[in-house]
Amino acid sequence: QHIFKHMIHMILLFVFLQPMKKLYLDDGSSLHPHLGPYFSDGQRRVDYVLAYEIEKPSSIRHRSSRFSGNKFIQRLRRSFNRSSSRAALHPKADPEIAAQEQRTDYHEDDKRFRREEFEENLLEMGLELEKDERSKIPEMGFVKIHAPWNVLCREAEFMKLKMPTKKVLNPSTHHQFFIHKVTAPLHPKIEPSRPQNVKSLCHPFSREKQHLFDLSDRDRFFDSKTRSSIVYQILKRTRCTKAKYSMALTFAVSSNRKYFGEKIGLYFAWLGVYTQMLIPAAIIGVIVFLYGCATVDDNIPSMEICDPRNNITMCPLCDHACSYWELVTACGTARASHLFDNAATVIFSIFMALWAVLFMEHWKRRQMRLNYTWDLTGFGEEEQVRHHNQRCCYISDLLFISFFHFHFMCLCVKLTCTDRMPAYLTTMVTMCFLIVLTFAIVFGVILYRISIKAALHMSNYPAARSNIRATVKTTAAIINLIIIIILDEIYGSIARWLTTLEVPKTDKSFEERLIFKAFILKFANAFTPIVYLAFFRGRLVGRPGKYLYVVGSYRMEECAHAGCLMELCIQLCITMLGKQLIQNNLFEIGIPKLKKLLRRRKSDLDSKQEEELNRTMQRYEKDHFLGPFVGLSPEYMEMIIQFGMVTLFVASFPLAPLFALLNNIIEIRLDAKKFVTELRRPIAVKAKDIGIWYNILRGLSKVAVIVNAFVISFTSDFIPRLVYQHMFSPDGTLHGFVNHSLSYFNVTDFQPGTEPVEPMHLGYKVEICRYKDYREPPWSSTPYQLSKDFWAILAARLAFVIVFQNVVMLMSDFVDWLIPDIPKDISVQMHKEKILMVEVFMKEEQGKRLAAQDNQNQDKCASPSSDNQSPPQPRSRPISHAN
Amino acid sequence: QHIFKHMIHMILLFVFLQPMKKLYLDDGSSLHPHLGPYFSDGQRRVDYVLAYEIEKPSSIRHRSSRFSGNKFIQRLRRSFNRSSSRAALHPKADPEIAAQEQRTDYHEDDKRFRREEFEENLLEMGLELEKDERSKIPEMGFVKIHAPWNVLCREAEFMKLKMPTKKVLNPSTHHQFFIHKVTAPLHPKIEPSRPQNVKSLCHPFSREKQHLFDLSDRDRFFDSKTRSSIVYQILKRTRCTKAKYSMALTFAVSSNRKYFGEKIGLYFAWLGVYTQMLIPAAIIGVIVFLYGCATVDDNIPSMEICDPRNNITMCPLCDHACSYWELVTACGTARASHLFDNAATVIFSIFMALWAVLFMEHWKRRQMRLNYTWDLTGFGEEEQVRHHNQRCCYISDLLFISFFHFHFMCLCVKLTCTDRMPAYLTTMVTMCFLIVLTFAIVFGVILYRISIKAALHMSNYPAARSNIRATVKTTAAIINLIIIIILDEIYGSIARWLTTLEVPKTDKSFEERLIFKAFILKFANAFTPIVYLAFFRGRLVGRPGKYLYVVGSYRMEECAHAGCLMELCIQLCITMLGKQLIQNNLFEIGIPKLKKLLRRRKSDLDSKQEEELNRTMQRYEKDHFLGPFVGLSPEYMEMIIQFGMVTLFVASFPLAPLFALLNNIIEIRLDAKKFVTELRRPIAVKAKDIGIWYNILRGLSKVAVIVNAFVISFTSDFIPRLVYQHMFSPDGTLHGFVNHSLSYFNVTDFQPGTEPVEPMHLGYKVEICRYKDYREPPWSSTPYQLSKDFWAILAARLAFVIVFQNVVMLMSDFVDWLIPDIPKDISVQMHKEKILMVEVFMKEEQGKRLAAQDNQNQDKCASPSSDNQSPPQPRSRPISHAN
Repeated sequence: QHIFKHMIHMILLFVFLQPMKKLYLDDGSSLHPHLGPYFSDGQRRVDYVLAYEIEKPSSIRHRSSRFSGNKFIQRLRRSFNRSSSRAALHPKADPEIAAQEQRTDYHEDDKRFRREEFEENLLEMGLELEKDERSKIPEMGFVKIHAPWNVLCREAEFMKLKMPTKKVLNPSTHHQFFIHKVTAPLHPKIEPSRPQNVKSLCHPFSREKQHLFDLSDRDRFFDSKTRSSIVYQILKRTRCTKAKYSMALTFAVSSNRKYFGEKIGLYFAWLGVYTQMLIPAAIIGVIVFLYGCATVDDNIPSMEICDPRNNITMCPLCDHACSYWELVTACGTARASHLFDNAATVIFSIFMALWAVLFMEHWKRRQMRLNYTWDLTGFGEEEQVRHHNQRCCYISDLLFISFFHFHFMCLCVKLTCTDRMPAYLTTMVTMCFLIVLTFAIVFGVILYRISIKAALHMSNYPAARSNIRATVKTTAAIINLIIIIILDEIYGSIARWLTTLEVPKTDKSFEERLIFKAFILKFANAFTPIVYLAFFRGRLVGRPGKYLYVVGSYRMEECAHAGCLMELCIQLCITMLGKQLIQNNLFEIGIPKLKKLLRRRKSDLDSKQEEELNRTMQRYEKDHFLGPFVGLSPEYMEMIIQFGMVTLFVASFPLAPLFALLNNIIEIRLDAKKFVTELRRPIAVKAKDIGIWYNILRGLSKVAVIVNAFVISFTSDFIPRLVYQHMFSPDGTLHGFVNHSLSYFNVTDFQPGTEPVEPMHLGYKVEICRYKDYREPPWSSTPYQLSKDFWAILAARLAFVIVFQNVVMLMSDFVDWLIPDIPKDISVQMHKEKILMVEVFMKEEQGKRLAAQDNQNQDKCASPSSDNQSPPQPRSRPISHAN
Repeated sequence: QHIFKHMIHMILLFVFLQPMKKLYLDDGSSLHPHLGPYFSDGQRRVDYVLAYEIEKPSSIRHRSSRFSGNKFIQRLRRSFNRSSSRAALHPKADPEIAAQEQRTDYHEDDKRFRREEFEENLLEMGLELEKDERSKIPEMGFVKIHAPWNVLCREAEFMKLKMPTKKVLNPSTHHQFFIHKVTAPLHPKIEPSRPQNVKSLCHPFSREKQHLFDLSDRDRFFDSKTRSSIVYQILKRTRCTKAKYSMALTFAVSSNRKYFGEKIGLYFAWLGVYTQMLIPAAIIGVIVFLYGCATVDDNIPSMEICDPRNNITMCPLCDHACSYWELVTACGTARASHLFDNAATVIFSIFMALWAVLFMEHWKRRQMRLNYTWDLTGFGEEEQVRHHNQRCCYISDLLFISFFHFHFMCLCVKLTCTDRMPAYLTTMVTMCFLIVLTFAIVFGVILYRISIKAALHMSNYPAARSNIRATVKTTAAIINLIIIIILDEIYGSIARWLTTLEVPKTDKSFEERLIFKAFILKFANAFTPIVYLAFFRGRLVGRPGKYLYVVGSYRMEECAHAGCLMELCIQLCITMLGKQLIQNNLFEIGIPKLKKLLRRRKSDLDSKQEEELNRTMQRYEKDHFLGPFVGLSPEYMEMIIQFGMVTLFVASFPLAPLFALLNNIIEIRLDAKKFVTELRRPIAVKAKDIGIWYNILRGLSKVAVIVNAFVISFTSDFIPRLVYQHMFSPDGTLHGFVNHSLSYFNVTDFQPGTEPVEPMHLGYKVEICRYKDYREPPWSSTPYQLSKDFWAILAARLAFVIVFQNVVMLMSDFVDWLIPDIPKDISVQMHKEKILMVEVFMKEEQGKRLAAQDNQNQDKCASPSSDNQSPPQPRSRPISHAN
């Protein structure tokens, strides 16, 4: 307990109050020194701020000098001698230390000692530190770090950072098409503002080749993003090589109105591309919907259903309480169903499968373009190593979460397969359990629906009975939604806990495992009710006289007459809208605001003091009150689930892309605002791609093809209609389809107790009722067996699935193959750059040679015996001349 | 015409007479100077040899000095002055030139002039040349090229070649498992022989960091492979920047017992991995086959067929000439069929689908390991550029093939989409035409079979009639095989011609397009007859009384009773064996030998002279008689088609992997021998992967899943048996299956003229005969219509396809995801290397700092006023102390 009270939180601060339009604008450093980005000398920039917690708020005055001890000063001096850099720490307050040290307990002392050693190591690496313990926030100390020029150069060389050279490329010929202008608002400005069409040739920085680079303005050569990531790199290395000092400090980035880093840039770029790609999908979705609306009156099946002359008597939908009903009452549902169940839907879902592939391709190209613009080409390998370096660090970070402090320290060195086995087993079991739990909950909701329906049917109040469907649907949908949202949060935490148990080796691995688990759980959570509706509901009901019963005597629920597509559509609509509204507005905006408020409250200041503080506080002190940056996973996750909704069941809900588009237009703004004003600035992380998310997207778009194939062939009536038209219809039209799709049932075959209470409900005696299935009539030799038509239609359905899946997959692969991954202009530009680079080097070579020659000539002029007009005598006579 | 006579061939020579075991052994240079690898001074190594053709064999004596002209000497002197390198060309024979020049015609002159300018450019780049026109081969001149140390260093730096540093890594912990030892003979030694378990840390070469590298033996620092590729790089650049001189010279590599380069290494590695992976597949294939053999007596359907007590009378297999037959005569075929059509086959084809994925994964890992061993990690980008650089060169190479000499020169500069459209259209149309042609030829063979069969049935010779089946099958299979082999060669040429028409921009693009076209054509060629057998034969026959007729009155051919699987199996067997035997032995070994012989003959020397020459000829002169290296495409193509045979129809022929394995064990040896002794040494090309072949492999293994699903469900009787067992069988066994699978036909329903001539053939009058199909019996209300069983079985077949395809695809993706692409030990090793590199650099930094400090200290000692014990006064007081 005591340990934890003293333990210093891992906090990443970030300073960023720029409005969204200038999100990535690099506008130089024009602020006053007192705002924080400079050391107190007003010259050295603050590249990084470390924050740590101090135990006793009463000793603020005294603590200012506590960080220096005798031993520390000794070391400090040694390192100052070595590095011969400008020192920022002033070791002056020696006399105060003795008194101070007696008051601190062992742990505090241990902590401090480690911190000091860590700081010393930093100094040894050439960094310059400045302490600020006089901060406005009680219990918090800050160490500002400045990386001097030679350190920056050294690290840039190690990291093989690509820096702009003096050579400027000729204007690129990237055309601004009309479409780009229209969709421009969707793409946040993620490129740095620089003179239009000008790009410097970049080359990995090397001190030997300094003459290549434009070093006229050393302060700006490395931008703040690069500087902070260089310092971060050093911090990581320091912590890694001497692991036992590693957990002594927390750190934070402080920098002035600069980049977020490529990783967040990629997220916004991805979101932009996704939203842009949603536009055509939304337009075609609306057209498909409108086509459905336009053709609803020409639809022969719904006309037949609505025609009262057909006078078809249907079998009761539940035992005992329900009675026979006339098909004409299902007219409304049938007409509504047609909106989503017509030939255009099939084309639309093929289109959406290709759309998904196009989206991936478009994104790959955009990513490539960004990589080029950000000079990340050829950067991949370094990334890999960085993450490997992070291994020990990561595990030491974990310590702050876990009890097994020193135990983990050993684990860091070696974790064999058998050590990991229990964790993996736990993960497997928990995951399976959670997925089963999800199914169980969905089944619970189904039971709720069935039982409530039965109860309401039984009730004597006519008002209740008339509103049965509406009541049941509404409550069930709301319960579903609430469960999804609650489980989402719980599953997120469980996934994080499980991943922590596994102790992955690298940061990247941790993130990937976490994402993978969270994705599976959240995906199952979001899609189980939908999958149930699409593929199971109404299929496991049995037939009249031999219904399927669950939990005693409840009959499995049936769909409305015109198939489950309509209900699937409603469910999708509610889930999408509800999830997006609640999660976006409440969770993403509301809760961070609330947390910020609470954090302020915790610091025990009344409002006047606070206002006073607000004016005088340093930038990094203010940032301390912002929420920590928890990574991009929640943002991506939300979008991926949405992508799933848009692609997986698009066959049943063509308006999904439109809903998604509307949501995303708001989402981009909200996310940007959140990153800028609500969260601390994260460390600028370089990233070439969106990592595992890309694989998940690929997986989803593959699954989407199969799911859509099944939705079209099994959930919709598309195939039965097609088969009827070509195999059974006398005149090649759909006339008679409704009659053909209904089987006959002899009411005398009802099992005792299940026949309707009011058989005369319709006003006449029913002898034969109809139900939707393909079974033999009662008068055949095998009554109520599945008929030949059933098998023929089933074969057609399955054949459709095979054809659809393989054709769409083939087309996808073809599109994938057709579109080159690297945009043409980028590859041309890269080629040009390479040639230019060789030219620059060749010129340099020639310059050297000429200089050497000049020297030689001068030497030769001095010695007149040598003849510099005739060629030098070859050492060997070529054989050709010897003959 | 005249132009072509004078045109100099593009010839790549390679010197390599090493036995296969030392294929890649780098055993230094211990040969005598007269064997060729050195300049006549015996000191400078020959890194490259250019060969060119000289018109008049009569002027050999005089031509020795022809290459130097007045202007040339002038330029030569200038360049000698500039480069101050040791000159190898001796400009002596000035007086002879005037007489010589008058005799040469314009073209020859033009050629020579260009050659001279080109040579001058090479000298300017710092290369050293030596001419040898006194060669033993008439009409050929050779220019030997040596790259001096400074040129090698410069180019290595440009090319960012990774060179070994002094730092040596600790022994790698790569375990030699038993399996590795057993399969070792399959893996040609593609790693350079070096002290076991020792690997130098590699770093891109840089002259500024020369101290890092072990330069103690400058002659061996760059090996011959690297040297020749550096020279090649310079040649390419020279030709590119001054395009108009570019076609003046042909070139050749000459080097002494050194590497082939990574590209060929990768081919052998791939072949090794493939062959190794074939071992388990072959073993399991044999087990499956043996399982079939063992269970053939327990197989109920074949027992029922062979049981004479069942006494089933079958309908005639052809019109008129054939008569009724008893099912028991099909006993042999039924039993043989069981060998390939049993439950184990299904499991085996699932296994093979996963096997294909495992193979790809295994290869990816091996490739990664090789990349690491060859220090190619992080090399990808350079490759890209190299190919882009090659653009102009490539097109100028094309000139030698094409008439449109100067026209192409312009095209090289710019080819718009519309310029290319005709070529693309031609390609499309030709490809479609050729594929249709392939289909037509297959159909022709079918017609041949049908008509021959009919003719033989009609014939009066009983001997002919008894051997009908054997005769038809044998001739048809041989015709098929011959057609396939002939078309293969034709299609290869057509693909090359089409690709040349398209004028691709880069070498890589040319190769990829060529491979893609050739693959499609050859694949269609090889697999069309097999696909016909698997999926169409016996399916389009109609039913008794209503047969399908083609070309007038020929009935479509039927399969033997127990399905077409047996025939498919035989066809596969013949194609695989025949193709491999003929193509391997005849084409790969015989024809190159023949060509070599012809080339020798062409040089008009009798055998004695030849022997004399053989002793005295230089290495590069001998190489001139070897065949040119035409690339690896034919080798890969052959293997990929084999891979297709192994994976695509494995469900019908479990012994395919065994056949492939036996072939490949021979193939590896033959290929290695061919490369070493029959072909000129190709330029060492760096390659990280096997390029488009990997994609083709992936595509094939995807297609294999679907094809196998269809073979199992439609070609074999697996599904009908399963359905019978679970839906129709009274006791859950297969008893009665044969009877159930045969429909009834009333002989009175034969159309007039189709009834058998000898109805009493069996000795009794037949009223009802049976045929294999699921149709309603004559006494049903809808006689001869497809029955309910048919539709049920069709649905089951289709469902099986869907389940099989998706399950196998899911499993494949899972395996793909489960196995990391980078082997663990390699990633650990790479990580270690990176850390080591940082350490090396950090040490260097510290060294520098200490040196600087020492200097400072010495300066300070000189000036006693400075105190070097106290820390330097910080420029700014930290704020904390101001308070």
